[in-house]
Order: sequence, then structure tokens, then C-alpha cells
Amino acid sequence: MTSTKKDTVIIVGAGLCGTLLAIRLAQRGYGVELYERRSDMRKGMIDGGRSINLALSARGLMALDLVGIKEEILKECIPMHGRMIHNMDGSTRLSPYSGREEDYINSVSRSGLNIALLHKADEFDHLNIYFDAKCTQVDLKEGTAHFETPQGPKVAKGEVVIGTDGAGSAVRGSLMRKTPQLLFNYSQNFLRSGYKELAIPPGENGSHRIEKNALHIWPRGKFMMIALPNLDGSFTVTLFHPYEGEAGFNTLNSKEGLLSFFNKYYADSLEHMPELWEDYQDNPVGSLGTIKCYPWQAYGKTLIMGDASHAIVPFYGQGMNASFEDVRVFDKILDQNEGNWNQIFYDFQEVRYQNTNAIADLAIDNFYEMQDKVDDPPFIKKRMLEMQLEDQYNDYYSKYSLVTFRPELPYAEAMKKGRMQDAFLLEKCEEVESVEDLNLEEVYKELKKL
Amino acid sequence: MTSTKKDTVIIVGAGLCGTLLAIRLAQRGYGVELYERRSDMRKGMIDGGRSINLALSARGLMALDLVGIKEEILKECIPMHGRMIHNMDGSTRLSPYSGREEDYINSVSRSGLNIALLHKADEFDHLNIYFDAKCTQVDLKEGTAHFETPQGPKVAKGEVVIGTDGAGSAVRGSLMRKTPQLLFNYSQNFLRSGYKELAIPPGENGSHRIEKNALHIWPRGKFMMIALPNLDGSFTVTLFHPYEGEAGFNTLNSKEGLLSFFNKYYADSLEHMPELWEDYQDNPVGSLGTIKCYPWQAYGKTLIMGDASHAIVPFYGQGMNASFEDVRVFDKILDQNEGNWNQIFYDFQEVRYQNTNAIADLAIDNFYEMQDKVDDPPFIKKRMLEMQLEDQYNDYYSKYSLVTFRPELPYAEAMKKGRMQDAFLLEKCEEVESVEDLNLEEVYKELKKL
Repeated sequence: MTSTKKDTVIIVGAGLCGTLLAIRLAQRGYGVELYERRSDMRKGMIDGGRSINLALSARGLMALDLVGIKEEILKECIPMHGRMIHNMDGSTRLSPYSGREEDYINSVSRSGLNIALLHKADEFDHLNIYFDAKCTQVDLKEGTAHFETPQGPKVAKGEVVIGTDGAGSAVRGSLMRKTPQLLFNYSQNFLRSGYKELAIPPGENGSHRIEKNALHIWPRGKFMMIALPNLDGSFTVTLFHPYEGEAGFNTLNSKEGLLSFFNKYYADSLEHMPELWEDYQDNPVGSLGTIKCYPWQAYGKTLIMGDASHAIVPFYGQGMNASFEDVRVFDKILDQNEGNWNQIFYDFQEVRYQNTNAIADLAIDNFYEMQDKVDDPPFIKKRMLEMQLEDQYNDYYSKYSLVTFRPELPYAEAMKKGRMQDAFLLEKCEEVESVEDLNLEEVYKELKKL
Repeated sequence: MTSTKKDTVIIVGAGLCGTLLAIRLAQRGYGVELYERRSDMRKGMIDGGRSINLALSARGLMALDLVGIKEEILKECIPMHGRMIHNMDGSTRLSPYSGREEDYINSVSRSGLNIALLHKADEFDHLNIYFDAKCTQVDLKEGTAHFETPQGPKVAKGEVVIGTDGAGSAVRGSLMRKTPQLLFNYSQNFLRSGYKELAIPPGENGSHRIEKNALHIWPRGKFMMIALPNLDGSFTVTLFHPYEGEAGFNTLNSKEGLLSFFNKYYADSLEHMPELWEDYQDNPVGSLGTIKCYPWQAYGKTLIMGDASHAIVPFYGQGMNASFEDVRVFDKILDQNEGNWNQIFYDFQEVRYQNTNAIADLAIDNFYEMQDKVDDPPFIKKRMLEMQLEDQYNDYYSKYSLVTFRPELPYAEAMKKGRMQDAFLLEKCEEVESVEDLNLEEVYKELKKL
């Protein structure tokens, strides 16, 4: 690592991805000018004070390790060793992520993580952060970004501009406005379900009212509820429901209706959610969209990464992890081509877009899998077989485990291998009445040959 | 048909689709206010005087027939009975579209057709056309559209607004700005090839220098040239080339380079194109994009159709035909639900988007088929077999024929049936050395069973 001051990089967006990138570039000796549309979240709560949490897993941790902040962050995390399935009758069942003790994911506060990264970024003299600066446009060939600030318009000039400004990216907007020149491919696709955040408050003395070290799921076919633990004893709860129909957000619009719905489908949660109706009323319904685009870079001067280039739905718990992985992959490509931004941006885009397309597709698959397959007998058998395999054979990884616990494996390869395994195991399960009828060792050996 | 004056419909875009729709709605007794961004093309040439032509086929004709203008238009068309394939060595071979005499497509001047429609539209007192009015925005729930005109801003208020303003649709832009509310899915995808128009001027006394009644193709694997006849004896020639590489538009940037390239690949055309270099320099490179979106309507008040909702690449010759078919399908749905715009818009969208998605995909397939399959032995055998089948059996239709000559069959069904036939025939061809080894009658009988 060099300490010489190199080119200045303008980064648009000081969220999770942008701040991590800023730190890494500062560590490498680049001048970094980091701009953020919102106010400094360290000076006040965002999201109306709600605790939003995310699942941090191996890919994200590997990137945090790169900048030396992994251990510090892990202290603020709650390990989740498996899924706690809540049945309609109130019974629960813990489904571990794998048989390997080291395979767990971590519940972390989104704003807590962002704040920790901002503090880390403050350590560098040659990294400046500007808040309340809304990007209006990027001059793609110039390394120049334009902002609206409370003090009036501002222009930032660097060697290159990198947009990490999220799903609604203004930098991507500038690429899109040059569609004919760049042949800019773009798609936005929404699921016909949305989400709404609720909460389970802490128990007595900050204890957790339900199992702390698990990701809780109430799977109900066409809709579901999940809950992730927070350090203060609370849980952040998310409803994933369609807009219309019995479970539709538009249908559940009265206190009586909502409570009766919860009584029917999520009965065991009711006692833990005294503010259910108030939370339901106060919190908006968010949409679940996937954004893909190509190219990610223009003229070797402008690049987008993170959600700006690949926003995905949350059903694989990989959105943040994929964005952090962007930074790790970018850093690796910097090693190979330092000094040649054109090559760096191009290589990054070419290596990365196939992998983020893969995780985007996997996340959508998982939405339908959770909705439609949860009661499907061959699928249940397959999942049982898979758990036995993971339990018995330390080197067997299910599709979920390949994605979640094998950070060295690119998403596209994890998808390919995982889908091949799934097809094979489903076929095996269709041949027998019960999973017990299968010879586990033979199945394992056949899998290894695939 | 009623002569009562009904609701007023605002139509944005007086191109081929919008003008046809305006005529049909006026015939049904609606008040129609038709707005067009460009000037009245009847008062001056557009496209710098270039003749642009299109292939008008059964689906388009069926829609023109609906408004009673088919025979008039056919008089301005040149029938093309098949593809004239130009080989590298200058030899040619006519590949008929089918064995049925009635199966031909028609070369028609784009501006000539548009002008004929505008004249027809002028016949209605309750149909007003406004040129030089650029749509800036639509109030989706209001039936209101805003325009910039040389006289200043103008607001048009009707019962509903229908956007037929092409691939760059401003009305679609208004839907897109309401993405979160409408969960607006959108994609734009470009081929890594573009196109450029050239010309073969008329021969002596307005004669055609090459076969008049054919669509000429110079297929060359990764690129190709086509030519369609015009009434004045000229041909409109289109190059479909990649941007980069030997045949790339960016590579062919000198007179010497271009002429030597033509000498190698399109030698037999050179003598007919005395202005080749001048045309090549003067005419821009256009991009080849596919646009899909959903929903097409909002609040039962705003609808998009034609290229505004489904822009496709030209490799099936169906862009204009699909847009005209939109009008025919819309008219049918009006019959069923007249008076209930909400139902009409919704039904139209639901019936139609699957079919336009199908033709969009078929058109892209055909681009790759023309590029990659033209020299592929099983594919050549399949095409030979297919031609024998169409020649021998009057009720056998290839995929191309299903799409082009069976207007009563929705695109999605034509695609499904055509792809099934293709897979079957390719399999048959792989079993034998030569197509002669197959029993045509048996193949035909098996096909009927599919």
C-alpha cells in the first residue's frame, strides 16, 4: 500500500457501499471527495427512528476485513444460526443454515454500520465528506459532478467519478440520458408484492422476547413475515405481502381487519407486538424492485457500483453483501491495472455484471420458492435431503450455502452449481416415497461427480 | 357504427399508429384531438428527403381494411414475393416466402403511408390535428396532456389520453415518473449492431436496377445488407453492421476502406450505388433497441400503444404491422366494453402485451438467426425441408409464415407453434444426411399431430 497521494476520486453517495469504497481508496492513497445527498446521520436519526437491520454474511465480512473494520463491526452483530420457522399453530422449528458451526449470518443495524464506516472514513486527511449535497448531473467524459447544496450549486472535479448513490442513482441517470451513445441497456422490474416494517419491542431488561440467535420466518404461501434481532432486545419485523387480495396491503386497512388477519396467520406474534396497528399505520409500503443495466462505465471516467448498478430484492439477504463485494473486487482489479482507469472500469464491469445479474435472479427465484414451494412435497423432501447432506458432509454446500458462506465463489458460479445440485436432488427425491429410502452416501458421491 | 359524438380522446403522436387510431375512433363517433410533435409532413419532406420504406404485411393490411383504406394503400405498394439472396460471388437465388401465391409482403413508403392516413383523417369534422406540439407531460388521472407549441404552452383536456408517440414516448415518460405508484416495469435493450440507410437510385426511365418484386438480402454472418424497392425505381438499402470490428461502422470510416469492403462483401451492389460514399457519410448510424414495459395504462385514463409501449428491432418486418394490429385489437375491445374506459384499457393491455412481447423476442431471435445460422448445415436443411412442406401442403405454415401471413393468429401463439415446429424439424434434419432422405408426407403427418 502506498502513502503517496494519487488521483482524486469523486464518490457520489456515502451509504454503505460508497463509504467503504472511500475508505479503501483513501487507504490506497487516493484523494477522495465523498458527497452525500442526506444530512450526516451521525447528527440525528433517519427513518423516523426505526431500527432497520440487515443480514451481514461472508461476502460482506470479507470486504469489511479488507479495510480492517470487520472485528469492530462483528461486535455490533447478533449471530443468526438458522431460520426459526413459525407454523400456523404457533409451533416453531429451527432450521440451521448448515451443519457447519461457522456458517451463520449476522443481524446488524443498517445505520449503525453506516455510522461506523463514516467514523472510519474521518480518519483520513485526504478523504473529505460533504453532506446535504444532491447530485444533479455528471459530465461523463470529464470526471465532474454537479451538486445542489444549501449554499447553492457546487461542481466537483476529480480524475474520475464513481456513483454509489443507490437504486435511484443520479449518476446512472446521467448514463441513461446518453442512451444512444452508450447503447445503455436498462431494466426495472417490480414484484407484485411490497413490504412494510413493523417491530417487536424489547422484553424485560432488554431481553429478546423470542429466540435471539435466529432469523424468524412465518411462511404462508403467498405472503410471509420475517423478524431479525437487534442489540437492544427488539426485533425488526418485515411483512412481505401482495398489494391486493386477502393478505393485500390495500385490503388490510382497518385495525379490526389487521388484528383478525394476524390472529389467523401470525397468531403467535400478536402478544409480542403491542403497537402493531400503530406501526402498520405509520410505516409506508415499500416496493420490491430489481434494477439491471449495462454498461456501468463511460469513457473510463464515470462508473457506477452497488445498488446504483444492480438493485436486487432482499430474499437472499445479499443486497448489502453484493455491494460490499463490489468494493473488494474493484480493489483487486486496481491491483492489476493501477493508473489505467479505463481498463479498471471496463474490467470491473465485465467481471462483475454477470455476477450481480446472477444474484439478482437468485433473489427473485427465492421469492417464488418461499411463496410457492414451501408446501410442495418434492421440495420439502429435497430440503430435508440437503440438510442431511450438509450435516454429514462438511464439503457439501447447498445453493443457499454456496451463495452465503462461500465468498470466494463468484455469484454466477454459485448459481450454476447450486441450480445443477437442485435439479439433481429434486430428481432423486421424486424417485422415492421418503428421503429415508435414499442412500445418502451414494447421493453424495453422485453429487461430487456432477 | 354510431354517428353520435361521444367522449373526446386526446391522441399524442400522429405517426402511423396514432393517425390510424384517430381515424378509427372518429369513425366510431368519438371526438379526437390528435397532436404531433413534428411539422405537417405533407408540407415538406422529412428525413432530409430520403425514401424510407417498410414491409407491410397481412396484420397491417387487416387493420387498414378496418378503416377502409387498404385498397388505396395497396396501389402504392410493391409486392415482394420472396427474398432475393445475394451470394458473395454475385450469384443470386430467390427464396419465395411460401408456396402460396397469396403470401407476399409489400414495400411501402413510410411517409407516403403516413400522408395517406393524414389525408383520410382530415375527412372528419370531429377529428382535429395539431402539428408542432411537443408533449411535455400527461396528468395520468385527468385525461389531460400538456404541450409546448410555437404559440406557447397548451393544455388539452379530454376524457382519456392515448400516447402513440413512438419509442421515445413522452406519455410513457409520464408513466415512468410514477414508477413507485404504478410499479412500472421497463426495459430498454440494444443490439451491439446498428443500421445505416443507403440507396440504389432508379435505372433508366424509372426502371428498377435489380429485381423489383423481392426483398434483397446480402447475408454475411455477422452483418448484412438489405434492399426494398420503391415506386420511383429506387431501392432503400439498409446496412446492419456491428459498431466495431472489420465490418464495424466505426472501422469503415474512409472512402477507400468502404469501397474495398464493398468490393469484398457486396461486390454485385457496387455498380448500382454510385453515391455510396456520399450516402454513407451523410446518413447517421441508428441504434437497434427493444423496449418493453408494463403496465401500459394508468387509472383507466391514460394508455400507450404502438412503439410507445413496444418498440422492436426490424428483423421480422413487424414493427409497423404490430402497431397497426394494436388499433384493430383495441377496436375489438371497444366493441365489447364501449363506455367503460377502465375496462377497455385494462383488457387491451392484458391481451396485447403478451403478444407484443412475443414479436419482440422473435425479432431478436431472427437477428441472431440471420447472423449465425445462415451457414449452419442443420439450419439450412431445416429451411429446405420447410420450403418443401410449404410448397406441397397448403395448410403448412412455417414460423415466419405464421407470423407474417396468418393475421388472425396472435403473435404469442404463432411464436409457440412456430418454435415447436422448428424444434421438431431440426431434430428430423439431424437424423439424415440430406433432406431427400426424409419422407415428406410422414414429416407432414407428424407435424399435424404436434
